[in-house]
Amino acid sequence: MNNVTTRPIYQGRMLRLNIELAELPNGRRCELEIVHHPGGAAVVVLDNARRVCLLRQYRHAASDWLWELPAGKLEPGEPAEQTARRELQEEAGVQAAEWRSLGQMHSSPGVFTEVIHLYFAHDLAYTQQQLGADELLEVHWIEGTKALSWASDGTISDAKTLIGLYRAAAAGLI
Amino acid sequence: MNNVTTRPIYQGRMLRLNIELAELPNGRRCELEIVHHPGGAAVVVLDNARRVCLLRQYRHAASDWLWELPAGKLEPGEPAEQTARRELQEEAGVQAAEWRSLGQMHSSPGVFTEVIHLYFAHDLAYTQQQLGADELLEVHWIEGTKALSWASDGTISDAKTLIGLYRAAAAGLI
Repeated sequence: MNNVTTRPIYQGRMLRLNIELAELPNGRRCELEIVHHPGGAAVVVLDNARRVCLLRQYRHAASDWLWELPAGKLEPGEPAEQTARRELQEEAGVQAAEWRSLGQMHSSPGVFTEVIHLYFAHDLAYTQQQLGADELLEVHWIEGTKALSWASDGTISDAKTLIGLYRAAAAGLI
Repeated sequence: MNNVTTRPIYQGRMLRLNIELAELPNGRRCELEIVHHPGGAAVVVLDNARRVCLLRQYRHAASDWLWELPAGKLEPGEPAEQTARRELQEEAGVQAAEWRSLGQMHSSPGVFTEVIHLYFAHDLAYTQQQLGADELLEVHWIEGTKALSWASDGTISDAKTLIGLYRAAAAGLI
């Protein structure tokens, strides 16, 4: 809906924070702290042994190692499926020939504009991992049914990873 | 892990933004934009007709109406289940006698500290909705199987709502 006024607070490498005086559809105005993010893409990738790729990744914001799908943020002008292909190759050292969409998700729509585009991919070729300097992660291949039990028992807590796995299971893909 | 230095950028009503020079477990240092959030709680609540409560809520950050579980942020010192009880009553006008945990989730752990505590609740009593001035929402009761089909077809895109519904289904609760 309309921004009546936007007060920019911070523009960084990845995030932009504004205080936005927003007009709701009922005409009410409210002041909101909104974090803008370019959006991201994540992929549930399945190998020939019906295992999915999960990264064990250190996350400073969680002060912990988390299980996550290969994923990353959209570069300017980059289509989301291209982001997912690039991140799969960089983080997991894998390329996939077959792709399909698992839809989108809003990470935290009260305060955060991030939308993550989810994919399922298979028919793999193995290449070379290319990690960024700030990425600390291990690549694991986990049986699909085990990954789903980890989603439900809380071993997996990352939102995009949970939603990707559950949507892939609902579609009969894992 | 350790913050070597933290540069505060913004402290607002709900969010705090820092630039943090973090030391990873392998000793590497990297500068990260981190948004701190107090955390939240959300509830999958089931009525006697096996319908779940979904709110149709306008979200400025998404510029759209989204389907969401009753949910809200933790007040200082408030236990998460108490937050879920309070928000269920305020947003949906419902109290529930029976509660169980559906675990936690990280909304976007690369940049955002938010953890959401998920619950399942049933055995309902109907009271009075008490909306805040900034809340624009409608209360709907949706058959559990229909809500799950909406999770998978993309009608529902909010992360906490998707994960709450899928975990409740995996536990045989909806």
